[in-house]
Amino acid sequence: MERLETLRGRLDEVNSKLLGLLNERAAIVREIGEVKEELGMAKYDPAREREMLERLVAANEGPFSDDQIKHLFKQIFNVSLGLQESNRKKELLV
Amino acid sequence: MERLETLRGRLDEVNSKLLGLLNERAAIVREIGEVKEELGMAKYDPAREREMLERLVAANEGPFSDDQIKHLFKQIFNVSLGLQESNRKKELLV
Repeated sequence: MERLETLRGRLDEVNSKLLGLLNERAAIVREIGEVKEELGMAKYDPAREREMLERLVAANEGPFSDDQIKHLFKQIFNVSLGLQESNRKKELLV
Repeated sequence: MERLETLRGRLDEVNSKLLGLLNERAAIVREIGEVKEELGMAKYDPAREREMLERLVAANEGPFSDDQIKHLFKQIFNVSLGLQESNRKKELLV
């Protein structure tokens, strides 16, 4: 039971680091969206997403399978894109 | 355009750190699954998941909204649980 508590403590630490990194990533994506806006480029870039996924899968050492990693990052990409959209909507409302 | 390249480089770094942390998390979850197995405890613990989500939302400083963070972590939880199941299936096949 003590071992379970130790592992749960480690899990909470990793969760907290993940939270920080996800938000760091979200801030970068938002900045990329702003630069693309200035340059008149489309926000959604499927080729770039595919490239990122390929790089991640190539670097994946598990325990998560390549498919699980792809699934999770696709979710992260989708939610990030939603973030750009909602910022845009906010801008349009100003 | 140069600024875009710099931001993309930073994004790749964060992706790579996220990959490492997700797999670190997966390894811990697998270990927790093994300990629970030994102790005869159920693998899926909705109360513990809720508690983790509440802690994450309380610590969330954005740019991701609380709902976006909840959505992403629920995906991570689900995929992790799948990992325990597939390990179990492998064990049963031995």
